[in-house]
Amino acid sequence: MYQIDLNCDLGESFGCYRLGQDAQVIPWITSANVACGYHASDPVVMERTVAMAKEAGIQVGAHPGFPDLMGFGRRNMQVSYEEAKAYTMYQVGALDGFCRAKGMTLQHVKPHGALYNMAAKDAGLAEAICRAVQEYDNNLILMALSGSEMIKAAESMGLSAASEVFADRAYEEDGTLVNRRKDGAMITDEEEAIFRVIRMVKEKKVQAITGKDIPIRADSVCVHGDGEKALAFVRRIRKALEKEGIRICSLTEMKKN
Amino acid sequence: MYQIDLNCDLGESFGCYRLGQDAQVIPWITSANVACGYHASDPVVMERTVAMAKEAGIQVGAHPGFPDLMGFGRRNMQVSYEEAKAYTMYQVGALDGFCRAKGMTLQHVKPHGALYNMAAKDAGLAEAICRAVQEYDNNLILMALSGSEMIKAAESMGLSAASEVFADRAYEEDGTLVNRRKDGAMITDEEEAIFRVIRMVKEKKVQAITGKDIPIRADSVCVHGDGEKALAFVRRIRKALEKEGIRICSLTEMKKN
Amino acid sequence: MYQIDLNCDLGESFGCYRLGQDAQVIPWITSANVACGYHASDPVVMERTVAMAKEAGIQVGAHPGFPDLMGFGRRNMQVSYEEAKAYTMYQVGALDGFCRAKGMTLQHVKPHGALYNMAAKDAGLAEAICRAVQEYDNNLILMALSGSEMIKAAESMGLSAASEVFADRAYEEDGTLVNRRKDGAMITDEEEAIFRVIRMVKEKKVQAITGKDIPIRADSVCVHGDGEKALAFVRRIRKALEKEGIRICSLTEMKKN
Amino acid sequence: MYQIDLNCDLGESFGCYRLGQDAQVIPWITSANVACGYHASDPVVMERTVAMAKEAGIQVGAHPGFPDLMGFGRRNMQVSYEEAKAYTMYQVGALDGFCRAKGMTLQHVKPHGALYNMAAKDAGLAEAICRAVQEYDNNLILMALSGSEMIKAAESMGLSAASEVFADRAYEEDGTLVNRRKDGAMITDEEEAIFRVIRMVKEKKVQAITGKDIPIRADSVCVHGDGEKALAFVRRIRKALEKEGIRICSLTEMKKN
Repeated sequence: MYQIDLNCDLGESFGCYRLGQDAQVIPWITSANVACGYHASDPVVMERTVAMAKEAGIQVGAHPGFPDLMGFGRRNMQVSYEEAKAYTMYQVGALDGFCRAKGMTLQHVKPHGALYNMAAKDAGLAEAICRAVQEYDNNLILMALSGSEMIKAAESMGLSAASEVFADRAYEEDGTLVNRRKDGAMITDEEEAIFRVIRMVKEKKVQAITGKDIPIRADSVCVHGDGEKALAFVRRIRKALEKEGIRICSLTEMKKN
Repeated sequence: MYQIDLNCDLGESFGCYRLGQDAQVIPWITSANVACGYHASDPVVMERTVAMAKEAGIQVGAHPGFPDLMGFGRRNMQVSYEEAKAYTMYQVGALDGFCRAKGMTLQHVKPHGALYNMAAKDAGLAEAICRAVQEYDNNLILMALSGSEMIKAAESMGLSAASEVFADRAYEEDGTLVNRRKDGAMITDEEEAIFRVIRMVKEKKVQAITGKDIPIRADSVCVHGDGEKALAFVRRIRKALEKEGIRICSLTEMKKN
Repeated sequence: MYQIDLNCDLGESFGCYRLGQDAQVIPWITSANVACGYHASDPVVMERTVAMAKEAGIQVGAHPGFPDLMGFGRRNMQVSYEEAKAYTMYQVGALDGFCRAKGMTLQHVKPHGALYNMAAKDAGLAEAICRAVQEYDNNLILMALSGSEMIKAAESMGLSAASEVFADRAYEEDGTLVNRRKDGAMITDEEEAIFRVIRMVKEKKVQAITGKDIPIRADSVCVHGDGEKALAFVRRIRKALEKEGIRICSLTEMKKN
Repeated sequence: MYQIDLNCDLGESFGCYRLGQDAQVIPWITSANVACGYHASDPVVMERTVAMAKEAGIQVGAHPGFPDLMGFGRRNMQVSYEEAKAYTMYQVGALDGFCRAKGMTLQHVKPHGALYNMAAKDAGLAEAICRAVQEYDNNLILMALSGSEMIKAAESMGLSAASEVFADRAYEEDGTLVNRRKDGAMITDEEEAIFRVIRMVKEKKVQAITGKDIPIRADSVCVHGDGEKALAFVRRIRKALEKEGIRICSLTEMKKN
């Protein structure tokens, strides 16, 4: 039976600053990546976001990022591997505190923004992050770009890994994402985006930007909750996947099967 | 049998900034209050501090403070109770992450600086902090000023509480600390300071600044590790207490008896 | 001839977080209080905000606050007078840098949030802030709550002061604002709010919450740009004031007359 | 007549954290690069540092860095050119505020750490920083690595530039510094270090790590004030230079001649 997790970044508000439409997107997803106070969020936002996820019955993951609130964690920072490991552990522990307080089990860890992108290509950085996750709790799932150094690092150390795919991004032949600055990097046709995801799930293939089919593993699809258009697409892709007989379920439920 | 815990604030360095002489004071204490990144410390410092404590066999507590690195958490901030609770939970979870990763059990939570002082007098703030500790882990011990609202709040909700006393501070008749700006607030004679602690432990009494004896409970004495003089005093008070037949042990060991 | 300045807090966005509708409110006001990176804003936002103000031909003031981004500078912090003075100078200099670069002259300094409120009542804090402004540039205007310790401190040291009044707030008999938690603290009837401002300008009087008329000086009225309702009120009060023959002009233009 | 400026990074303390021995190094240098609150320092430290410099009669420059207090501005950050320009202007303005308040004229701007190193090689980043300096005040001097993109950018836009050399670093044939991780990157022999600086000043040449002599321009030598050994070297190099008939003077005095 085909199945897929739908994940979305949540809890990105900070202080009096509001970001995202968490309440609107929660009913349509199965896993939430919750910001941990470094690139976004604060403790009050984290407590509320975890409470919302619990009430909706969706799974929670930690979404650690660089200590760069001003840049929303989207700017590359040359931190050392020791720093990357410690920053990850700090943020995972902090978010898990709110989960524990609510009797929830943290499901996964997915690095954010520039940390996600850098670790996808830097084996040493990937290992540092995975080591933090494993030392914290070996039952956690590491979610990262399908085919990345992160997935390889997790698997090589026996940590569960969930491969993430993107509906709206083109892929190179080597499985990496096409740089946003290149033509054709974004899949703007929603029909096509949905078709591609269905094929990734059912055939484990995607057509690279060169036209060649490449193998890809899809455990979770990343969706967005910022704006009406994004929300409409979440509803649309969820319905399309269900219509294709693909079960929409969290990584936790997948593991049980 | 008489017994007392010796606690000290550790892990207060930040980035390239060094503070305190952690390695020198660790051999003489039984419990460490480790800063959590809000008023001091960063994840790398936290990881190293927890590792040092583990190697030395002393117990670790979280030392949450206000989000005020520039003021070292020593300036009163009018945060709401919801904020105080969430800030406490965030910091406790973050520090506990490093303990879990090292197979250690977090022993206690002791608020820092202005948060400690404000919560000693504000019952609502005290309850918010204790609630965070209890929801996070009901087995944690709340360490706070002997006789304070913090101790009352912990006990009223069934949370273990450890009463902290100070060797170098004078007490008012109501058990609160004499304001530092008042004459006689500091006990500068080391002989007298040690005598007072011994009496607090053995007789459960201390002479207030007015000359009147008042009851006091002493589970832990706060010592300092910043400077040669402070370190010399730690060694001296420890030896004096042991000579009096008072067992120096952590709160965890105390609980077992 | 009657005249009044209309001021509004601008440039409160931070990183990827958007706040306020600066472009919409700018055409209706004469002075902008621009956040300086402590309680809100960042250098990119500051540069853009000053550019917008220049293009619209309105005056710019610095809006320094507490170093509390997480609390938007709205939480009381017990900083020392030396700290308050240095924090003010830092923020004023930083914002003025962007003005200088664009060939603009900084018009005024108006403390933000909790700093504004605390300094209105604390003569020592008020003096520290005014001292920073005066040492930085004796030609700057200090904008603060009409009748406050801030205004007194500025005048006593020969610094120009602009008295600010609020259309939507009730006043106590001593000229202080009624605490927001008290009944009747907010003037919700827009008609009444406008009537009160007109009276403050023309008769230099306002009816206190007790019913008694008290004297008040009004050099500037604070308006808000966050939301459609606030924007509609700005347009409405401006038109009403002009209809009454009151000239709407910046503090700089007032000084010239 | 030969002349050279001796510059040192000052004012790097933060809150209760102390760094550097500013009072000890000040009598031996002619220009201070003062941290501006992004990678180090806070407004109170800035005010005190500028006051110390004024009293000693040395010149003050702004030392802007990345917004990375945790990493002391030593970690590369991929900020945009717009961000780099705005961050520079913010910090220059903030520091200049303290200079203005004391009746001092800001002498120069020298980027710090990773920002200095990145801008030495990235022409776009160099231009963004120089543009900020020029728009702020065209009379300021830009201090940067001799032969770097920073110097080229400043000169190409008509901004005064001061070329900085290092006594303790080896140079590649193209004039860039040898990477610290390479053998021979550091000149550890003090005698040799001093000899090299004298030659840079008098002959405008230095021997590259390959053995080949290369041309170099030396307007200022960077010295350090962190520790007894560093302080001893400052005294030693200053005396050696003076003995060689080289005048030790600030960039401001140099300009006058």
